[in-house]
Amino acid sequence: MRMSKKASIGVTGLAVMGRNLARNLARHGHTVALHNRSEQRTKELVEQFGDEGDFIPAYSAQEFVDALERPRQVVIMVKAGAPTDAVIDEFVPLLEKGDVIVDAGNAHFADTRRREAALREKGIHFVGTGVSGGEEGALHGPSIMPGGSKESYQSLGPLFEDISAKVDGEPCCTHVGADGAGHFVKMVHNGIEYADMQLIAESFDLLRGAGGYSPAEIAEVFRTWNSGRLDSYLIEITSQVLAHTDAASGKPFVDIVADQAEQKGTGRWTVQIGLDLGVPISGIAEAVFARSLSGASNLREASRGLGGPSRAPLTGSALDTFADDVEQALYASKVVAYAQGFNQIQAGGAEYGWDIDLGKVASIWRGGCIIRAKFLNDITAAYAEEPALPTLLTSGGFRKAVEDAQDSWRSVISTAVRLGIPTPGFSTALAYYDGLRAERLPAALVQGQRDYFGAHTYRRVDREGSFHTAWAADGRPESSA
Amino acid sequence: MRMSKKASIGVTGLAVMGRNLARNLARHGHTVALHNRSEQRTKELVEQFGDEGDFIPAYSAQEFVDALERPRQVVIMVKAGAPTDAVIDEFVPLLEKGDVIVDAGNAHFADTRRREAALREKGIHFVGTGVSGGEEGALHGPSIMPGGSKESYQSLGPLFEDISAKVDGEPCCTHVGADGAGHFVKMVHNGIEYADMQLIAESFDLLRGAGGYSPAEIAEVFRTWNSGRLDSYLIEITSQVLAHTDAASGKPFVDIVADQAEQKGTGRWTVQIGLDLGVPISGIAEAVFARSLSGASNLREASRGLGGPSRAPLTGSALDTFADDVEQALYASKVVAYAQGFNQIQAGGAEYGWDIDLGKVASIWRGGCIIRAKFLNDITAAYAEEPALPTLLTSGGFRKAVEDAQDSWRSVISTAVRLGIPTPGFSTALAYYDGLRAERLPAALVQGQRDYFGAHTYRRVDREGSFHTAWAADGRPESSA
Repeated sequence: MRMSKKASIGVTGLAVMGRNLARNLARHGHTVALHNRSEQRTKELVEQFGDEGDFIPAYSAQEFVDALERPRQVVIMVKAGAPTDAVIDEFVPLLEKGDVIVDAGNAHFADTRRREAALREKGIHFVGTGVSGGEEGALHGPSIMPGGSKESYQSLGPLFEDISAKVDGEPCCTHVGADGAGHFVKMVHNGIEYADMQLIAESFDLLRGAGGYSPAEIAEVFRTWNSGRLDSYLIEITSQVLAHTDAASGKPFVDIVADQAEQKGTGRWTVQIGLDLGVPISGIAEAVFARSLSGASNLREASRGLGGPSRAPLTGSALDTFADDVEQALYASKVVAYAQGFNQIQAGGAEYGWDIDLGKVASIWRGGCIIRAKFLNDITAAYAEEPALPTLLTSGGFRKAVEDAQDSWRSVISTAVRLGIPTPGFSTALAYYDGLRAERLPAALVQGQRDYFGAHTYRRVDREGSFHTAWAADGRPESSA
Repeated sequence: MRMSKKASIGVTGLAVMGRNLARNLARHGHTVALHNRSEQRTKELVEQFGDEGDFIPAYSAQEFVDALERPRQVVIMVKAGAPTDAVIDEFVPLLEKGDVIVDAGNAHFADTRRREAALREKGIHFVGTGVSGGEEGALHGPSIMPGGSKESYQSLGPLFEDISAKVDGEPCCTHVGADGAGHFVKMVHNGIEYADMQLIAESFDLLRGAGGYSPAEIAEVFRTWNSGRLDSYLIEITSQVLAHTDAASGKPFVDIVADQAEQKGTGRWTVQIGLDLGVPISGIAEAVFARSLSGASNLREASRGLGGPSRAPLTGSALDTFADDVEQALYASKVVAYAQGFNQIQAGGAEYGWDIDLGKVASIWRGGCIIRAKFLNDITAAYAEEPALPTLLTSGGFRKAVEDAQDSWRSVISTAVRLGIPTPGFSTALAYYDGLRAERLPAALVQGQRDYFGAHTYRRVDREGSFHTAWAADGRPESSA
């Protein structure tokens, strides 16, 4: 009976992410064709979850394609890189003009651009889409960030909006922009996630090392913060992780975990692309470096005895306000990290000709994904008010909040510096803020040095042109070059 | 008469760098074949500088190759990228097994590896070499960092050592390692140069904004520093740049220069490769970002009114010791920046199988190049004592100096934070130092978060294996995964 009707969409690659996406689609009433390199996974899905909706299992690429309505919509959920290319190469000969291939994996946006251009030649729509929220998100409602042509979104959009997370009744899915825009935005999302997690980690370290609080007490602090402007999934789970006691040892969970953070690469990509675009995204960079440093066991082992201050809890009035001060510092640093990330999206959009609605991006991150937060509503509002906002830091609400956080922010960093608690995320956020607002930067000296040693020339504040000074080292005259 | 003998080396690409290298070779008694895409430059060189030594001008690729002794040694000095490939493609058919092509331009080491592998197939040695010191260095003695085969260095080494800078009678040239090792090391050299310049710029900004000194007074401070442990080319020229008065306006030169630092890309490459290698090189990254930020005019324009403290000069005893404190902070931060850079070279060496002598690298940077400094002798000594040193920070002399600098270093950063003077370089250096020496890092919390939202698992401090906790969000049991 099920074989009599066609599927509105198909999923190939049925490991946990693909399986959950397929189940999510079926649960929403869509008939889903299923395909996997090995038959076993396809059979298991139908056996275990066949009652959740209409599935059409297919045991060859041709059978899979034949099961799809036109235009055919094929979602690929396999490993990024060569496996993705292999699956594309397998299906392209079986598809027709107007069909849509969706790569829902974690591709680098440059690969997505390459693939989109190649398939466009053949009249096939290639949609690279970010899918955020992990396994649970894929099943219950992820944040979905599709790129590709506007035309492809006409057929694909309703399906994806249907299965996405919903916040205030709005789907966490939008057409981000052409070709690689979806994967680009997903990449920056992950970069921001790195920065946010690092700032939370520094807050914990400060509350413990300078505040003298226990993990359970800090869990409570985070629980309180979660009912305020920091209300977010990451703050919520931080509270739960810190409140957790390890069953085996009876110790606080956070104390039995090896302090070496791992990473899967999207944070690194974000920084590398930020560098190509010339966007200072120091918050993400410091977060990536902090993870690398934590994992450098030999280096840390050798360095453990290096001299410096001991951590000594604050006392008196400094202690009384410390948790509040850290909240201010965390909030201000977080605004900076998001401001940097959104500027990277803005720069990517300009570079690649994507017409990205930054407020809408913030809005589809409110549900399904790791950085979902109340805070994102304020970002949406800021861009709604001024779409070409040069930085979130100058929009009304954020500006006031960060200005109000000044004293606490600076005081917390000074405390960290004095007690020897590393706060690369807080520190770089503040340096960025002070750099932006500086009347003059010492970059003028750097230009002078460059002109001295390399005759790179400089510009002047008082007239147009390029100038070179006849420094002692050479015989070139001071001149407009 | 000159045409009767063959040239021991040839240079193709006679813009200023190639011309000066050729002149340097001729001045040292080597007969140099000359070639350029357009004849004009070749003729000019011979007309203007023909009396400096023996040149053999050639007006076709064949004529150029025929003028060379065997094995032929062809130095290419053209723009990196496609122009370099074009010149290689032009010459390869005219060369024989055992001949040597040298790329003395600023190639990315990955391109050098690709070219070396392709030419090795044909039996031709391809040597990517870093040449540091700009136009003046090329003429009077650069620091030279050749990669490529050991065999190629047998013929090339004596020539290059001959024309390189000399310090204490030793040539600033060594065989760095196979294939792309030379260009890799040159890249990191440039990255370190960015970091060093940024730290100097921050020192200037602090002395002015917190110390209340004039540029002329700061020039004097740098002049004094240059007679101590900071003795280096960059400190010396900083003093001269700061002492310079702009003739047109009568103002300090540094005040009439636009405060937007430019960059040509090698700093960015260094950070991107550091990220690939997983080496935290935050000092170089912050320097690159600081330049980008300085150049973001719209962003800075919009942000200029953001609230924060005003710069107010220190007074009393804090002012008395301030310049000395800044010297300590600069020295300590500089040790960190170099430690990070040398760790990147170490990691590159391990990744690509280069057997790089780190002490020797420091030694050949003592002359000819921008970061030449007395300080490099200490690095050479540190690696001589312990070739596998995990970080310069743990070697005797540096360790003690940085430990002794603690109080000043922390005090200077606190002052900057309080007064709103951006010090991203100083701050990240200290955060790195405190991160390395930390007994425990909050990376444990990050691992807990990752396990919570993505079931990424964690390791424990008390037993082997990978673990996952059954967090509220899912139904997975706590287990070894």
